[in-house]
Amino acid sequence: MTFHGVFPYLVSPTDELGGVNMPVLGDLVEHLVANGVHGLAPLGSTGEFAYLSDQQRLDVVRTTIAANRGRVPVVAGVASTSIRHAVQQTEAMVEAGADGILAILEAYFPIRDDGVEAYFTAIAHAARGRPVVLYTNPQFQRSDLSLPVIERLSRIDNIRYIKDASTNTGRLLSIIERTKGRLDVFAASAHIPACVLMIGGLGWMAGPACIVPRQSIALYEAAKAGDWPRAMDLQRPLWRVNEIFAKYSIAACIKAALELQGFAVGAPIPPQEPLSEDARAEIAQVLRGVGAL
Amino acid sequence: MTFHGVFPYLVSPTDELGGVNMPVLGDLVEHLVANGVHGLAPLGSTGEFAYLSDQQRLDVVRTTIAANRGRVPVVAGVASTSIRHAVQQTEAMVEAGADGILAILEAYFPIRDDGVEAYFTAIAHAARGRPVVLYTNPQFQRSDLSLPVIERLSRIDNIRYIKDASTNTGRLLSIIERTKGRLDVFAASAHIPACVLMIGGLGWMAGPACIVPRQSIALYEAAKAGDWPRAMDLQRPLWRVNEIFAKYSIAACIKAALELQGFAVGAPIPPQEPLSEDARAEIAQVLRGVGAL
Amino acid sequence: MTFHGVFPYLVSPTDELGGVNMPVLGDLVEHLVANGVHGLAPLGSTGEFAYLSDQQRLDVVRTTIAANRGRVPVVAGVASTSIRHAVQQTEAMVEAGADGILAILEAYFPIRDDGVEAYFTAIAHAARGRPVVLYTNPQFQRSDLSLPVIERLSRIDNIRYIKDASTNTGRLLSIIERTKGRLDVFAASAHIPACVLMIGGLGWMAGPACIVPRQSIALYEAAKAGDWPRAMDLQRPLWRVNEIFAKYSIAACIKAALELQGFAVGAPIPPQEPLSEDARAEIAQVLRGVGAL
Amino acid sequence: MTFHGVFPYLVSPTDELGGVNMPVLGDLVEHLVANGVHGLAPLGSTGEFAYLSDQQRLDVVRTTIAANRGRVPVVAGVASTSIRHAVQQTEAMVEAGADGILAILEAYFPIRDDGVEAYFTAIAHAARGRPVVLYTNPQFQRSDLSLPVIERLSRIDNIRYIKDASTNTGRLLSIIERTKGRLDVFAASAHIPACVLMIGGLGWMAGPACIVPRQSIALYEAAKAGDWPRAMDLQRPLWRVNEIFAKYSIAACIKAALELQGFAVGAPIPPQEPLSEDARAEIAQVLRGVGAL
Repeated sequence: MTFHGVFPYLVSPTDELGGVNMPVLGDLVEHLVANGVHGLAPLGSTGEFAYLSDQQRLDVVRTTIAANRGRVPVVAGVASTSIRHAVQQTEAMVEAGADGILAILEAYFPIRDDGVEAYFTAIAHAARGRPVVLYTNPQFQRSDLSLPVIERLSRIDNIRYIKDASTNTGRLLSIIERTKGRLDVFAASAHIPACVLMIGGLGWMAGPACIVPRQSIALYEAAKAGDWPRAMDLQRPLWRVNEIFAKYSIAACIKAALELQGFAVGAPIPPQEPLSEDARAEIAQVLRGVGAL
Repeated sequence: MTFHGVFPYLVSPTDELGGVNMPVLGDLVEHLVANGVHGLAPLGSTGEFAYLSDQQRLDVVRTTIAANRGRVPVVAGVASTSIRHAVQQTEAMVEAGADGILAILEAYFPIRDDGVEAYFTAIAHAARGRPVVLYTNPQFQRSDLSLPVIERLSRIDNIRYIKDASTNTGRLLSIIERTKGRLDVFAASAHIPACVLMIGGLGWMAGPACIVPRQSIALYEAAKAGDWPRAMDLQRPLWRVNEIFAKYSIAACIKAALELQGFAVGAPIPPQEPLSEDARAEIAQVLRGVGAL
Repeated sequence: MTFHGVFPYLVSPTDELGGVNMPVLGDLVEHLVANGVHGLAPLGSTGEFAYLSDQQRLDVVRTTIAANRGRVPVVAGVASTSIRHAVQQTEAMVEAGADGILAILEAYFPIRDDGVEAYFTAIAHAARGRPVVLYTNPQFQRSDLSLPVIERLSRIDNIRYIKDASTNTGRLLSIIERTKGRLDVFAASAHIPACVLMIGGLGWMAGPACIVPRQSIALYEAAKAGDWPRAMDLQRPLWRVNEIFAKYSIAACIKAALELQGFAVGAPIPPQEPLSEDARAEIAQVLRGVGAL
Repeated sequence: MTFHGVFPYLVSPTDELGGVNMPVLGDLVEHLVANGVHGLAPLGSTGEFAYLSDQQRLDVVRTTIAANRGRVPVVAGVASTSIRHAVQQTEAMVEAGADGILAILEAYFPIRDDGVEAYFTAIAHAARGRPVVLYTNPQFQRSDLSLPVIERLSRIDNIRYIKDASTNTGRLLSIIERTKGRLDVFAASAHIPACVLMIGGLGWMAGPACIVPRQSIALYEAAKAGDWPRAMDLQRPLWRVNEIFAKYSIAACIKAALELQGFAVGAPIPPQEPLSEDARAEIAQVLRGVGAL
């Protein structure tokens, strides 16, 4: 199985007692798949993985898989500080039917390259052949993947993709050049998707795709066709969505936008706070500007 | 119940299957209490709380309480990204018999002051009258407590102590001056204990106290007696222990030192790595220099 | 006068007594102009402006202008912590015949947006109609230009360009969208030039262009012709030059590369140190890989 | 010649044309010496050295020396990015009659330890036997002195003091322990002077001493007498002055305070901005609280 194209990072709608709101999540999955997304990524940063228990995480992934009904690949997030816990999660996700694993290292103390490599290698083995997407977000995670570690990890068979959420697009080109044929790159919301596609990336895994799926797919198709002027025409207005996503807290922003679009996904998990009225109004304006409201 | 003096941050000895090594932890508790420590703090940074499941955390605290046999206060760490999970942990710790709570906020996305206040307030309520120690460590945690939030939290009845693990000793004096009579300050290993005691602090909560309990108590007693020249005479050689603790990864360092002292606490939880032979030799030398080996 | 295309950031060859090595600088200018560069930028970061006296700076610019003989525009760097000193420098550069000013704010204490705006506005006035290029390099300078300040400055007539040396390419798109028709963007070495040209940038101001002028121009021409596949074919091997420039200290790296190419530009100004033999060998290999040695 | 006690960092009163306001500076020097300060330190951070030309710097030091009339030692700041320029400044300061040099490294590109050592060693030689004070301020300067470099520099005969303006008081104890008998430590405003004196420091070089000279000397005397309870009684209210100094831009704050005390030192050098009315009112209140207004 190979991945490409637009994979929205799903939000995780929860109630105050910590239960996953399965009907709302199911509706969102149906909406996104119906709009043509190429895959689904529950439990990314936008999915508030860092705020969910193991049981909640599993409920989110199971609900996503059930609502998807096998139409597109589901890549489930796995994140921990410890190898043992990450392997447990991976095994549970595989058993639940995930098509791939988005692998995240949560560090408390700094981890050296050998430890980082051991962590992701253990997840890859536990994924039993399913493709693994390395995910590194230096803004929120307390560890980063160095280029030498990425190069070493790219030699493991089922480590096949990377999503780097730094803002440094040049780093993506460095990764592409060093791991050619072994590792493919997905853009994050901090990069300009049109640029990442031009330098050789094969898609976009990001929270904003939840709220602008059609527009994201149109951009992807233009880029895939090599029509770069059209890709940039589509990219320019869409960039406003990424700007606003970077301005406000990620989960709060996407949840607010989805509420505006009619999905009752609720508030971010406390002590995160919902966005202010002013912020909601700004988001509404941006959505209207790209035809998403 | 009030706290003062030397509270070692206990390590969490675990085996490869994730079980807590209760006999070794029990031995360590017995050793520390017999050497006169004024309290015990399981599940601080040194205790690798960030690497343990809820069940492991509870096992560590229960083992500590059982081995302590009521001799000194036990202040149990509670840490989460979500209010709901923090409250659950607090309730479990209180039920297990903890005498106080060391409260830690783990952030993924940045949290604003109102959210930070809500988080610690919820823990304080869940502690049902037991004293709460605020703990902030800007080096490892992705959130910090601002002075205005500390001031507001100090007005909650059972929020009574703070342990600030920044290296900024002046910040401690600012906290002491703003919260006089409501909040008392413990030194962390990043501060010079003799200085913190002189500016009005009432003790020391830190990992190094696990390996130099007698020496730490002697320093505390000298300071309490107002004998500052003697306090500094004791402080100077002891500072080498804090220096080495800051140089190496915290849990790995204290676990290595305890192994040298005959406690089979094992390695830090993977992907953390045990210290090199050179590092162990350096630690051994420092321990010998202060009569702790 | 308008600027576009490839502007190498010139190095500043100096001797131990602090004199500018005018013959070597003149040779380098002749070589670059003969190879087709679209302009020259003395006194950028690569030009070690931060290590030169006012007199040395003026000597570098005068030598550049004399050797250029009016063939391409010369954009001279102006950098200070104080408005008064920046204005003095600008006046001297204009009098020496500079065609434009590259404006840099050196901060010691943090400066608020109003002060930043006042600084660049004063330089623009002192430039008497000559185009000003805003330059911001958050890695080395202790101040950065916020988007609102850039937007305000873009409304001053002769502030016409910006070179942002962050690694954040998305920020460039945000600047382009906000200042359309008023401010044009040049890529820095920290961005992928092909990407910056695709999102609407009009050239490249950077140190590496000193050592790969022909290759840089070929890439620029392909992009200008809208031939993006060819632009990327040229970009991929060239990126190695930017990688090595980011790996080693900037001035030391370009000076070492130019020495390898036969220009006796000497060592970086002490206490900067010349590169090691290993680093020189690595640079030589990279240069050979792109046909620049 | 040896240094100890309270050395105010003098402000540099300048007019809009960049001239040094010599009468006002002379009055301030007379006032401080009459109030018993142990020395004078022109051209520290508070003295806005980073905003002054070589000529202005020399005028500040000459005015200070003339007004001092040999009563206390004058330690003149020297700061540059280049060795050559630092040596020139040092020679000029020695010729002007400075009793010691406060040595500052201004970095643009990162400098490795060997380069840092070469820089300060060159200043020490140029000082021809006069004592050199190493000054490191990681908040504003783009370089820091590592412990191994400090240890190596402490072996140069006339490098005799260090002023570390980090907030990390533990680092001072590490320096004291490693360089015993060779290097003495002065507190900066970011440290609690009473603590630095207790751990072995011998005084205080800082901007706030300009506005609370008597109070600073009283604290120093209590500490020198070993009367730590009294030192802390004096320290507590004085800490408010350091807090406000850290809250507002340093030079703007001290200049505003001196204006309130009747010294027409003027505004900070543009684009720095003078403090707001609210800030001035807050400073006035703090000054009144310690009997300095």
